[in-house]
Amino acid sequence: MKLKAAILNCTLKKSPEVSNTRALIDKVVALMKPLGVTSEIIRVVDYHISTGVTSKEGKDDEWPKILRKLKHADIIIIGTPIWFGVRGSVAQMVIERLDGTYEEADPKTGQFPLYGKVAGVIVTGNEDGAHHAAATTLFNLTHLGCTVPPNADCYWVGEAGPGPSYIEAGGGKHLYTNKTARYLAHNLVFFAKLLKEHPITTNLKELTEEAKQVSA
Amino acid sequence: MKLKAAILNCTLKKSPEVSNTRALIDKVVALMKPLGVTSEIIRVVDYHISTGVTSKEGKDDEWPKILRKLKHADIIIIGTPIWFGVRGSVAQMVIERLDGTYEEADPKTGQFPLYGKVAGVIVTGNEDGAHHAAATTLFNLTHLGCTVPPNADCYWVGEAGPGPSYIEAGGGKHLYTNKTARYLAHNLVFFAKLLKEHPITTNLKELTEEAKQVSA
Amino acid sequence: MKLKAAILNCTLKKSPEVSNTRALIDKVVALMKPLGVTSEIIRVVDYHISTGVTSKEGKDDEWPKILRKLKHADIIIIGTPIWFGVRGSVAQMVIERLDGTYEEADPKTGQFPLYGKVAGVIVTGNEDGAHHAAATTLFNLTHLGCTVPPNADCYWVGEAGPGPSYIEAGGGKHLYTNKTARYLAHNLVFFAKLLKEHPITTNLKELTEEAKQVSA
Amino acid sequence: MKLKAAILNCTLKKSPEVSNTRALIDKVVALMKPLGVTSEIIRVVDYHISTGVTSKEGKDDEWPKILRKLKHADIIIIGTPIWFGVRGSVAQMVIERLDGTYEEADPKTGQFPLYGKVAGVIVTGNEDGAHHAAATTLFNLTHLGCTVPPNADCYWVGEAGPGPSYIEAGGGKHLYTNKTARYLAHNLVFFAKLLKEHPITTNLKELTEEAKQVSA
Repeated sequence: MKLKAAILNCTLKKSPEVSNTRALIDKVVALMKPLGVTSEIIRVVDYHISTGVTSKEGKDDEWPKILRKLKHADIIIIGTPIWFGVRGSVAQMVIERLDGTYEEADPKTGQFPLYGKVAGVIVTGNEDGAHHAAATTLFNLTHLGCTVPPNADCYWVGEAGPGPSYIEAGGGKHLYTNKTARYLAHNLVFFAKLLKEHPITTNLKELTEEAKQVSA
Repeated sequence: MKLKAAILNCTLKKSPEVSNTRALIDKVVALMKPLGVTSEIIRVVDYHISTGVTSKEGKDDEWPKILRKLKHADIIIIGTPIWFGVRGSVAQMVIERLDGTYEEADPKTGQFPLYGKVAGVIVTGNEDGAHHAAATTLFNLTHLGCTVPPNADCYWVGEAGPGPSYIEAGGGKHLYTNKTARYLAHNLVFFAKLLKEHPITTNLKELTEEAKQVSA
Repeated sequence: MKLKAAILNCTLKKSPEVSNTRALIDKVVALMKPLGVTSEIIRVVDYHISTGVTSKEGKDDEWPKILRKLKHADIIIIGTPIWFGVRGSVAQMVIERLDGTYEEADPKTGQFPLYGKVAGVIVTGNEDGAHHAAATTLFNLTHLGCTVPPNADCYWVGEAGPGPSYIEAGGGKHLYTNKTARYLAHNLVFFAKLLKEHPITTNLKELTEEAKQVSA
Repeated sequence: MKLKAAILNCTLKKSPEVSNTRALIDKVVALMKPLGVTSEIIRVVDYHISTGVTSKEGKDDEWPKILRKLKHADIIIIGTPIWFGVRGSVAQMVIERLDGTYEEADPKTGQFPLYGKVAGVIVTGNEDGAHHAAATTLFNLTHLGCTVPPNADCYWVGEAGPGPSYIEAGGGKHLYTNKTARYLAHNLVFFAKLLKEHPITTNLKELTEEAKQVSA
């Protein structure tokens, strides 16, 4: 089965600057390829993305281009650097813009556009904050409709305090990161196939109606 | 298909004190019942659970009793109050004790005991912190092997600052909470059935070996 | 004693859209005024701020204008909306840009430019996440050199799930928010005066040298 | 000026097991000693502390012994390990128990018992989560009345994933940790002296009354 992955690289640095997050993303892309996944990596800062919480913010806004790619994907991965212990502002902005998708629920099932997609995260930083960045991002994606498999995150950080980043530090040889990159790749693919064959049947629209009847 | 749910009520208050978290748990149990789920609610503070990070901590430790229930369940739900903006200490202790399950990986697949189980969270508090409590807990459970469906959390909190809790405040009539309780129940059941019929095939043991070969 | 406060309104919405965060900021400004504080409110999205982690990112970058105001202030307040349970992307971007101030340490004391300033936060959201937004932001500001007094945050959120925002919900009459706005205002002023009269004497430069001698 | 520090070691391991958090605490104690600070380290798990949110939970509860020490201290430090990316359950329990102090406000000023005390945190873990553990804990302590100086945290973590802990990894030679231990010690002492000579004058009781008048 052919699968498509849309991977958002939420580095703060525009092309062609070197992105450590990209280096780790590339590893996961290479691991998913033999499993039948065609990946597209989107470097968000290279687009003009307006701040906001809808799917279209003004005429110069290029978010709709990115959103289209996310909607066509089976697998969505957010790659983000850590800044000050949490995910970077670009990743936060991406999540904010996804708020707009709640408005485009399927008229029959009430499912949001990201329902049925499988989500993962890739995090790099030179010191600390990977658990937090991953937890927040994966949780937000479940609200938006994504499914989170076991071991859906892969990260690299160095020791306490500032220091060399992933590439410079030779993170490419770090066992834990290489191991979890594999868990991530294989579980994303397993679930993407499973959900393609067995779409989620939950009817959010009917359940909302039911809830209205029992609420104040 | 018959399904089993193990629900840990991580209230700080021993029986028979009234637990607000329990009140919301009961709602989710009632919603899952017609979907074929037999639920067992375990009030953790009523057991003698030692602090630690293994599956057995001293001879009086009753954690093994709880762990057995979790292992036999298809669905695992952590219900927790919020204290100081985060999940309570009992929920934190439960997660710490689950660290011990990493030691009991399947000899062939390397999968941890919670692999293949579906996880959800239920959170109550009188003010603020539900997103954080839910995000942290669901993320920890994915590390331990659980799958997190879309909309896998249900919570109630009141307005800013101290105030009446779920029961007293009439939270039982709160639309958002009642709606998300339904999304949670239905998605947990959908995924529990799906994973029972289609167990996760990822071989963590082989992937770890592969990672060792490419790492330093 | 005359004091200056620089207050960053990190709403995602440009002027002249109504900002709920601004409404709560205005309350705190009014409370600080009779205590001798002249406040300047800076709506960050109305400036062209580049993404990055230095104090100057390209020639169109207007961050230096904002940074100048922060450096001249005795009191720094970050006002932020909550999006997806955490502080908004504009607040995150502001913190990232402050990373640049580490490079401008005082040549004698090694103290960063924000040393000696007092910090507070103001948070608004319609549902949940205020503790998290406040904790993260205040902590980041301590790393940058700010002092955090007791009760240095003031927030308003509504009940669980989406709902009316601060202004529409009549949050202006919410006791907890009005109480903590006062604690915040008075404690910020107490500490700003205290630190103006008794500057922090810690010599970070000497301590760093000492640390180098005892480290590897 | 003589100062007293009460340091809670919130390791999960009872005496006489080796505690990595203790090893880093000892460093900070040694740094504060020549600055006039007498420190008492309290290993919380060696006491029988009941779960709860008041200052006395049942007759066997030994929390009152610890609370007394905290009340007599000028400086309060929470030392905690990281488990699953956040502070350990013992630290969480300590914070929960401090909720009881809100009930013991000074009848004239309304200030809580920890008002006027200065707070810091010390965090150790083998992988990731120090920023989060520190931010949450310091923020909670500001709610309880403590003042947080700049650079009020000191931590050590290793690279991504499980690995050797502070002692075994030779963390004692880690520059960043040794540097921030010094910043922490000196800033805690500076503020403890300052607040002893210039107690916080904010009258929370009067401000609460004022807030009541302007609220609904």
